[in-house]
Amino acid sequence: MSNPSVPIQSDPSAHSGVKALKCRECGRRYELLAIHVCEFCFGPLEVEYDYEVIGRKISRKSIEAGPVSLWRYKDLLPVLGEPTAGLHAGMTPLVRADRLGRALGLKNLYVKNDTVNHPTLSFKDRVVAVATTRARELGFTTIACASTGNLANSVSAHAASCGMECFVFIPHDLEAGKVLGNLIYKPTVVSVKGTYDDVNRLCSEIGAEYPWAFVNINIRPYYAEGSKSLAFETAEQLGWRVPDQVVVPIASGSLLTKIWKGFHEFTRLGLVDENPLLKVNGAQASGCSPVYQAYVSGKNHIVPVRPNTIAKSLAIGNPADGFYALDVVGKSGGQVEQATDSEIIDGMKLLAETEGIFAETAGGVTVACLKKLAEKGAIRPDELTVAYITGNGLKTMEALAGSLSQPVSIDPNLSSFRQIVNPKS
Amino acid sequence: MSNPSVPIQSDPSAHSGVKALKCRECGRRYELLAIHVCEFCFGPLEVEYDYEVIGRKISRKSIEAGPVSLWRYKDLLPVLGEPTAGLHAGMTPLVRADRLGRALGLKNLYVKNDTVNHPTLSFKDRVVAVATTRARELGFTTIACASTGNLANSVSAHAASCGMECFVFIPHDLEAGKVLGNLIYKPTVVSVKGTYDDVNRLCSEIGAEYPWAFVNINIRPYYAEGSKSLAFETAEQLGWRVPDQVVVPIASGSLLTKIWKGFHEFTRLGLVDENPLLKVNGAQASGCSPVYQAYVSGKNHIVPVRPNTIAKSLAIGNPADGFYALDVVGKSGGQVEQATDSEIIDGMKLLAETEGIFAETAGGVTVACLKKLAEKGAIRPDELTVAYITGNGLKTMEALAGSLSQPVSIDPNLSSFRQIVNPKS
Repeated sequence: MSNPSVPIQSDPSAHSGVKALKCRECGRRYELLAIHVCEFCFGPLEVEYDYEVIGRKISRKSIEAGPVSLWRYKDLLPVLGEPTAGLHAGMTPLVRADRLGRALGLKNLYVKNDTVNHPTLSFKDRVVAVATTRARELGFTTIACASTGNLANSVSAHAASCGMECFVFIPHDLEAGKVLGNLIYKPTVVSVKGTYDDVNRLCSEIGAEYPWAFVNINIRPYYAEGSKSLAFETAEQLGWRVPDQVVVPIASGSLLTKIWKGFHEFTRLGLVDENPLLKVNGAQASGCSPVYQAYVSGKNHIVPVRPNTIAKSLAIGNPADGFYALDVVGKSGGQVEQATDSEIIDGMKLLAETEGIFAETAGGVTVACLKKLAEKGAIRPDELTVAYITGNGLKTMEALAGSLSQPVSIDPNLSSFRQIVNPKS
Repeated sequence: MSNPSVPIQSDPSAHSGVKALKCRECGRRYELLAIHVCEFCFGPLEVEYDYEVIGRKISRKSIEAGPVSLWRYKDLLPVLGEPTAGLHAGMTPLVRADRLGRALGLKNLYVKNDTVNHPTLSFKDRVVAVATTRARELGFTTIACASTGNLANSVSAHAASCGMECFVFIPHDLEAGKVLGNLIYKPTVVSVKGTYDDVNRLCSEIGAEYPWAFVNINIRPYYAEGSKSLAFETAEQLGWRVPDQVVVPIASGSLLTKIWKGFHEFTRLGLVDENPLLKVNGAQASGCSPVYQAYVSGKNHIVPVRPNTIAKSLAIGNPADGFYALDVVGKSGGQVEQATDSEIIDGMKLLAETEGIFAETAGGVTVACLKKLAEKGAIRPDELTVAYITGNGLKTMEALAGSLSQPVSIDPNLSSFRQIVNPKS
């Protein structure tokens, strides 16, 4: 078993555009190891690329000739060799959402639909595909995570498909679908009596003691980059174009910052024209909205909260990348909105009834916040807008208890049916 | 509202390869209307194509340039205009299954994974995409179905996304996930006190009285063709090749016959080389195995049964296409196998633990029968084999109650964790 402090590193390809890890705060550079925090200033580490090298390798044509998965963008992902996990993640549909748009007064609306991501139906399959491939390059044989649910599902599935040992840590009050969606793959599921923030803190301690790849802790710099694929796919699926407005749910904040980064990388490489209009908007649940609170109070630091929301996948009270998400929103001229539990349910129903897409509670948050942004004119009717729907509704069925009408029950004969309905003609 | 006996027909393209409906028994031809049974001999109607016309339009190159959905095979689907529903259905991953293969002694195994089909996570999204598009061409504004669950989910979602009226009829004892997976889209859900076969009989009567498009009754000839896309995609994803062995679950039997038809159409059009080895194997649950019973007793007629199985999506005791499925199995030299409830659960777990794919009970049936076929040498180790996994496990969570280990519960501190685990190094 490898030791996390001296991981076995794959031979970096001489032509790889992946250069180093770099501290976001002090700029200090590190080798491409299983580390995530600057030893000097405690800033977060991020992957640094050589865009000149990448620019010589990548083109619209090379991407279009690639696999139907996020690995078509491999040159912009932090792995050194070929992918070995999550080969089918990504390339989910970008759905033209005219009926939802009409309901909201928007004429140019799309939904990026990760409710059908492979294999575990959430955007986490993107980050885990990248993290697992990188963890294996670094020699790890055990993979682990702290999770609000979707991440644990994805880590468990990817570990199973690779034959890796697996530990997933979840808060004790998760939805049944998300718990079962771990157990079926037979990892060790550790249910922690506390919030996600407690789970996360505990996992940092465990990570210091056990030689495991915690995808969202010591592997985080690589893991987080997987989210850029949502921007890459959006741009390609729009016909190589950057949208005017995006609406992104905020949990840790990482997803929002990486979508921004993805559009900027595509622009920098000349794969798309720059769109100076691009605004990045954040969506939070009112029951856990530390980034929204900072945004409305005009502060640039995040005050942690104790979550109390049905949107459990967004229930991170102390978001690791909250500050950076706030920064992106501000720089782009976007906004942060929040939605109450009942607005979340209404958002889930609206998306299902207009577009036939059954999203989990986080998707309800996104739709509810999109609605608010449209109503107040922050998103104008003609703007090219993309809403990110990040997980499937079958995982959060409890949230809908009592909110939907029930089936009509009849006997198996025509007269019983006639009693409940009249012909519409 | 149109009347089903005189539907409004779209202008057929002069170049369309879709010719007519034709009785499978007596060969009598009919116009391309909302009918499914021969008026003279009561045989089922099937779509007839002009393969010369299609051959002039279709090529590997034209297909590869098409959309990332089943509509890339539009020339072989029974619609006359452009698709208007289910634009993102199909093109699900074909997963190389080396770890499952090792467990079963198979060296060349793939899983066609419709657990992530768009939008409702089963192969029914294929047939409903085609049926809904055709129903709209025929002028219908209300869409309906008799369903064991997955079909109702898909019809409800597609109706919502098109703004159509929707009635779905289900047996009263369906899994909670499948019921909720209808209600969220706000169709009229009619729960019938009886089996699927009762539901189906009732819907035939309702269809004669109400001007609705019942996708699997009066629209059935068009609907069923959508399943061919599973064969088309398999062949393309294998690098334009027909496998040696396929294993397909049997409910009505339609899916199995259409996968066979799809491979033969591709061969006839020269898109793939003929593979005379191709064997089509059927998989049923022991609790509802009328086709298996006919197969093992050497009969060519199906004796209806009363279903009693956890594989509710396969619980059709009187399968409409059972005879034809049996015929295809026989012609191809394949076999039919069956799996008990506990073997089904074991199949679901094996697939999840080896490949990270969480299938519903029907997928457990397929894997369990694949295992039996491999064990008895009906599928040899080197044969190129594809198992069809048709729906997602989150819809049939009840079936796993008591079958999985539970999470380990701890307090949020390191000493509590240390008590449950030792480092593996």
